[in-house]
Amino acid sequence: MNTVTIPVHRDLQAERRIAAAAFRDELTRRGVFCVNLISSPGAGKTTLLQATARAWPEQGRLAVLVGDIATDRDAERLAPYLPVKQLTTGGACHLELSLVQKGLAALDLEGVEYLFVENVGNLVCPASHDLGEHLRVVALSVTEGDDKPGKYPKAFRTSQACVMTKVDLLPYVPFDLARAEADARLIQPAMSFFPVGALTGTGIADWCQFLQHQRASLITGVARR
Amino acid sequence: MNTVTIPVHRDLQAERRIAAAAFRDELTRRGVFCVNLISSPGAGKTTLLQATARAWPEQGRLAVLVGDIATDRDAERLAPYLPVKQLTTGGACHLELSLVQKGLAALDLEGVEYLFVENVGNLVCPASHDLGEHLRVVALSVTEGDDKPGKYPKAFRTSQACVMTKVDLLPYVPFDLARAEADARLIQPAMSFFPVGALTGTGIADWCQFLQHQRASLITGVARR
Repeated sequence: MNTVTIPVHRDLQAERRIAAAAFRDELTRRGVFCVNLISSPGAGKTTLLQATARAWPEQGRLAVLVGDIATDRDAERLAPYLPVKQLTTGGACHLELSLVQKGLAALDLEGVEYLFVENVGNLVCPASHDLGEHLRVVALSVTEGDDKPGKYPKAFRTSQACVMTKVDLLPYVPFDLARAEADARLIQPAMSFFPVGALTGTGIADWCQFLQHQRASLITGVARR
Repeated sequence: MNTVTIPVHRDLQAERRIAAAAFRDELTRRGVFCVNLISSPGAGKTTLLQATARAWPEQGRLAVLVGDIATDRDAERLAPYLPVKQLTTGGACHLELSLVQKGLAALDLEGVEYLFVENVGNLVCPASHDLGEHLRVVALSVTEGDDKPGKYPKAFRTSQACVMTKVDLLPYVPFDLARAEADARLIQPAMSFFPVGALTGTGIADWCQFLQHQRASLITGVARR
């Protein structure tokens, strides 16, 4: 009813894809493996990154850009663990590449091998925006229900890994890990799954090892070119 | 960078506001009190509506339109309890008035006094869309963390009530009810709060009573005009 179609004579989506690919190449050349972490609000992205940094063998090699609509609460929580820069969208429901690039300019990447981008808490809109990441990870907390992958298909279809968070709450909530995995695999058959309890450290070692393997594959691939 | 400004010579936002106000007036005339329920994915909107229908004194007076990006899982869950119509947005991150109106045409409103619109699970975008509701309610589950109101200000600023869901999990999660309330009141000082455990029925009676009072005030107000 309120739709107006306007020809703009520019393929904005193609421009965005090209810009993201160029940024990804630049990060690869610098040896920086970039992870775009998406999830619902309160699924535990920040707590996962805290636990990841605590468990990481050489902490100096991690950095994080953290997106939020308002406040710098997540950056405050992460600052004791790793270099962090808050990106505040001022109302927007997802991060865009330009904001990530602006934030990165304020972050010292010297020696950084892993850059996490913690997206705005939103299981819908961030799935449509390529931030130049090498790996997209969707976090799903077991308190959200095992029916969520099918209900939010794009977040799962565009991710390569899924971290099932808050597994220490499994005894108290109706959530079947196998059912959630099966539901996600219908959408993304190649998905890797990592059940974690970030507050207790459960599953964090496997998750860290996965990231290290992913970066190693990328760097080896680049060396072979 | 990719922004293009295009003058359209129509105030689309004003058109939307006018259409929503007209729809709200129509519902009021028909004696239907409309509640727009928003929250993160998995905060428990559907379970809250199931518990509400179970506890309601006269079940025939409730109906629900349930929004989702994909699947009719929530409608399946609600169908045993109250008249329901699934609205599938096909990718869109929120419900719009036109879809609500289309869905309503397929729902028998005869005798319905309370119409719930369960929005897409998204704590950001639905806050910007008036669906013609009389009351906007934001649900926040205690598993999401007590820092969320300030991080998602528009959802809380545009709501008149907040249901704190899953309170039966409070012993197992770091969540301070008073802190979350104080954070929300900074944004929306007139907010009413309802801590509920929908699976156990905790707090459901107060929540139902609140809805009944809200509708009664509306109808009395109309009668006085």
